[in-house]
Amino acid sequence: MFTPQPIGFVISPFKDTGSIPKGLGAKHEEEGVLEILPEFAPGLTDIEGYSHLIVLWAFDRSDGFDLMVSPPTDNRPHGLFSTRSPRRPNPIGLTVVELLRREGGSLHVRGVDMLDKTPILDIKPYLSSIPADKLRRGWLAEAEARKA
Amino acid sequence: MFTPQPIGFVISPFKDTGSIPKGLGAKHEEEGVLEILPEFAPGLTDIEGYSHLIVLWAFDRSDGFDLMVSPPTDNRPHGLFSTRSPRRPNPIGLTVVELLRREGGSLHVRGVDMLDKTPILDIKPYLSSIPADKLRRGWLAEAEARKA
Repeated sequence: MFTPQPIGFVISPFKDTGSIPKGLGAKHEEEGVLEILPEFAPGLTDIEGYSHLIVLWAFDRSDGFDLMVSPPTDNRPHGLFSTRSPRRPNPIGLTVVELLRREGGSLHVRGVDMLDKTPILDIKPYLSSIPADKLRRGWLAEAEARKA
Repeated sequence: MFTPQPIGFVISPFKDTGSIPKGLGAKHEEEGVLEILPEFAPGLTDIEGYSHLIVLWAFDRSDGFDLMVSPPTDNRPHGLFSTRSPRRPNPIGLTVVELLRREGGSLHVRGVDMLDKTPILDIKPYLSSIPADKLRRGWLAEAEARKA
């Protein structure tokens, strides 16, 4: 396959996992910066035209995985791939952020949920959405309904 | 960081990159199967509740990268991270698919745009969308307008 390498690092207000909002109704409105390394910064050309970006990053402070997990959103266990658990066979995180502005190799964004200094693997434009009436949210919707 | 490992492989009708629809207005309606390896299949528990999944996979037949690229959708070059080019520092692909049904470790899905036998790195639930009126699509929208 390939050897993962950081293209940059996240500057985030979250210094430990306990400070990241989790569970039902968790909002990710915090602002942060995606600091892209100088050698990759020319690849950001034209990115200002997008309102939202997909950030792929490494869960670099996570270790191992279980195939059944009990997420903070529910007291019932679910299959790992039905959750966003950080402990995965390939520990790759995904966050959709709103791009506020770019300053050279620094992307100021809203919606970070990564720890400070998280290595960034890739940035892709967010191009299309599933219409709300076509989207089913599985056990998460059920867990929300049970707590409502 | 981590060493990427396949959790399964894509069964796709696309045997070579030339057969994958590309460019403006390209539709990805093809059906395929995400074959998850038996040792990871228990992690699919409860996944049937989701209508759409995010699939992360490896561009295993791509090599190297350029920071400025000329995508098939436009005749002007753009920064790599403003495009979905397969040639990236970390060659990770992302596809949102519609889950049609599950048979054990086999997920039958619509919307594949990967080559046959592509290694799958991760599957995550697709949980929320950016409302259409909040989404800006950058140079791609401009390129579409120019060709319209």
